[in-house]
Amino acid sequence: MTSSATNNGPTMTVYDFPVGPYPTRVRIAVAEKKLQMKIRFELVDLYKGEHKKPEFIEQRNYSGTLPVLELADGTLIAECTAITQYLDTLDGSPSLTGTAPLEQGIIHMMNKRAEIELLDAISVYFHHGTPGLGPLVELYQNPEWGFRQRDKALRGMHYFDKVLQRQPFIAGDKFSMADITVIGGLVFAAIVNLDIPPECRALLSWYERMRQRESVATQPAFSS
Amino acid sequence: MTSSATNNGPTMTVYDFPVGPYPTRVRIAVAEKKLQMKIRFELVDLYKGEHKKPEFIEQRNYSGTLPVLELADGTLIAECTAITQYLDTLDGSPSLTGTAPLEQGIIHMMNKRAEIELLDAISVYFHHGTPGLGPLVELYQNPEWGFRQRDKALRGMHYFDKVLQRQPFIAGDKFSMADITVIGGLVFAAIVNLDIPPECRALLSWYERMRQRESVATQPAFSS
Repeated sequence: MTSSATNNGPTMTVYDFPVGPYPTRVRIAVAEKKLQMKIRFELVDLYKGEHKKPEFIEQRNYSGTLPVLELADGTLIAECTAITQYLDTLDGSPSLTGTAPLEQGIIHMMNKRAEIELLDAISVYFHHGTPGLGPLVELYQNPEWGFRQRDKALRGMHYFDKVLQRQPFIAGDKFSMADITVIGGLVFAAIVNLDIPPECRALLSWYERMRQRESVATQPAFSS
Repeated sequence: MTSSATNNGPTMTVYDFPVGPYPTRVRIAVAEKKLQMKIRFELVDLYKGEHKKPEFIEQRNYSGTLPVLELADGTLIAECTAITQYLDTLDGSPSLTGTAPLEQGIIHMMNKRAEIELLDAISVYFHHGTPGLGPLVELYQNPEWGFRQRDKALRGMHYFDKVLQRQPFIAGDKFSMADITVIGGLVFAAIVNLDIPPECRALLSWYERMRQRESVATQPAFSS
């Protein structure tokens, strides 16, 4: 499915929905690593439920989610963390996932925490506590569970605010995959109209800085 | 909280519940890396809700889950994947998380998929569709959501069976962190009496092999 590799053209495909919070994570990682020219982005229309069709689930990603990275030989890597880990270590110079063991451990912890406490929680709220992708895609909804997850995400914002009161980035002194995941969470928060509470000043100020990073500012999620 | 480091004694603490499916993941990783002598295990009683107490959440892990690794200097690493990543790369010889970028990517993908489609799904079923840790700990339950997750986990077993029909381990030709996570899922499945369907012969046969590995066989979850 990928175009054949040339020296300068794309050698990888990302199955993508450009303004989607999860695809935005991989898009930011790609931009941070300056790999844009190596990657072709192929639209999978979430609002048409293309990611839940049997072909997609059987051929691309069992979990029926975006993004998915396809290599030139057809190998598929799903899950943002896995894709980021792969892209980040491609040239032997990891910058998003850490080099020293402790750095790697802390980044993976904060990345996972950003998923559990913020991004994934808002995703569940979107799919269960709001119309989500619409009645043709959202075949089962559990609004009560959705609202619980919304409240969890709001608590998560306060947690990350506390983290950012004591350090400049989510996993410490350097920008990392964990920052990208919180950005993904806040992209999703905007979609569901979940504002960052005004008292979360450290989070708001960090987000303002993040939005000025070229890898972030250039994403479709931030250009509307 | 850790004992002071000596040349031979433990230098790290794992906050642990020995038969818990998530703690078992880190216990297996510790055994694979032969780090048992470096680690002191400290019991946190899940059935008493010790992991949900404010002290634990404020001082150990915001997400209120086990296990958590504490280093000699007090640094805390929560989340099994993060702890495994740290322990695995401590001596510069990763064996559970991969060395080549593609290997790392595939292991992280399958590890995450094992969480989403099996282990985490069964955990939600346990806490929402069964009495879980009991009425004093399970302050909110959403049984309908729990039952959906049980069904998802059963589908997940069929998915991993298909994976194991074409390769010997969850992420390919070698034992990895992803195998450990599926083992964690099946440990939890046994707790909630969710049998592996008999037609999942590749999964059953892989699990039989896994249970014979020393790192697995010696765990409290397998000795009862």
